[in-house]
Amino acid sequence: MYAPPIANLIDTFARMPGIGRKSAARLAFHVMALSEKDAESLIAAIRDVKENIRLCEVCQSYTDAQPCRICGDTKRNQNVICVVESPKDVEAMEKTHEFFGVYHVLHGAISPIDGIGPDDIKVKGLLSRVAEGGAEEVIMATNPSVEGEATALYIAKLLKPFGVKITRIAHGIPVGGDLEFTDEITLARAMDGRREITL
Amino acid sequence: MYAPPIANLIDTFARMPGIGRKSAARLAFHVMALSEKDAESLIAAIRDVKENIRLCEVCQSYTDAQPCRICGDTKRNQNVICVVESPKDVEAMEKTHEFFGVYHVLHGAISPIDGIGPDDIKVKGLLSRVAEGGAEEVIMATNPSVEGEATALYIAKLLKPFGVKITRIAHGIPVGGDLEFTDEITLARAMDGRREITL
Repeated sequence: MYAPPIANLIDTFARMPGIGRKSAARLAFHVMALSEKDAESLIAAIRDVKENIRLCEVCQSYTDAQPCRICGDTKRNQNVICVVESPKDVEAMEKTHEFFGVYHVLHGAISPIDGIGPDDIKVKGLLSRVAEGGAEEVIMATNPSVEGEATALYIAKLLKPFGVKITRIAHGIPVGGDLEFTDEITLARAMDGRREITL
Repeated sequence: MYAPPIANLIDTFARMPGIGRKSAARLAFHVMALSEKDAESLIAAIRDVKENIRLCEVCQSYTDAQPCRICGDTKRNQNVICVVESPKDVEAMEKTHEFFGVYHVLHGAISPIDGIGPDDIKVKGLLSRVAEGGAEEVIMATNPSVEGEATALYIAKLLKPFGVKITRIAHGIPVGGDLEFTDEITLARAMDGRREITL
């Protein structure tokens, strides 16, 4: 239906995560409507990221400096490592303004169904960091999914010999959520993780 | 919070229609995760579209040939012109497989609030096409919005002297829609456009 260059661009956008065919078509039509200058800006922005953004050698997050801003920040507690699945999770955590440690990005989670094993995620660097000593706590902040839980458990077992404190972020009812509409697994977790109210 | 190249790419994506900041960040992180080869494919796809896609000289839709496939298709009725606001609307109409005429894309609608006047949309080409003679019907298929209605009315007035039949697509309850949840304006239009049931 579309001319080949248009169909190709739509296909390229549609391969991106969270972009359906309708959104991909909308994006493609937007690109077609861009001025030459704006199209070049878009291309330059993509190139800039590909050329200048690398993984931080310490935490494996995206960065334009080595180490990244967080790993290089002496005001942050370098001995508390929060383990997340993706660089996006680092940003989500940073937005809370409540965590002052550092991160380790796995770039995935163990998922046998998808053929992702322990060697396909960035676990080794984390082991080295903990093996170097100094780490007081490793917080497993992988997603509350089957894969995230399995990954948290797997890494916890690997880290056990180092004697470091290993914790898991709490599961429970989201703030603003409704008990009535909370699924039973979450609710059970929320009960399980209950804390005493100190008056 | 983000390294400048990342922030810039997110901003670039966020300027696209229907892409909020969260989606833009997701897209940017996807681009960062692309292999060099895939990133170059994306850039090549954007470039290909910018270099090879032009407006059809007849209908102003996007095309890689002159005239476009639809305007050059002798099996289509070149005397019935469906006027739409955007190239996306052409695709939407084509998907119905019910229209066998040709199109004219305005690339916008008259909107005084947004500073878009009659000279900012591609009306002149439509007038020339009708002035050349041969056109039997011009179907105004602009959106059922204030701007779309105003544009349809404006163009209808311009075309009146040529004595061509001018029609407007029907407004009514969407198929699968619910009478109870249909707004009163649409419902009034649906009543207004009622047709006799032929048994």
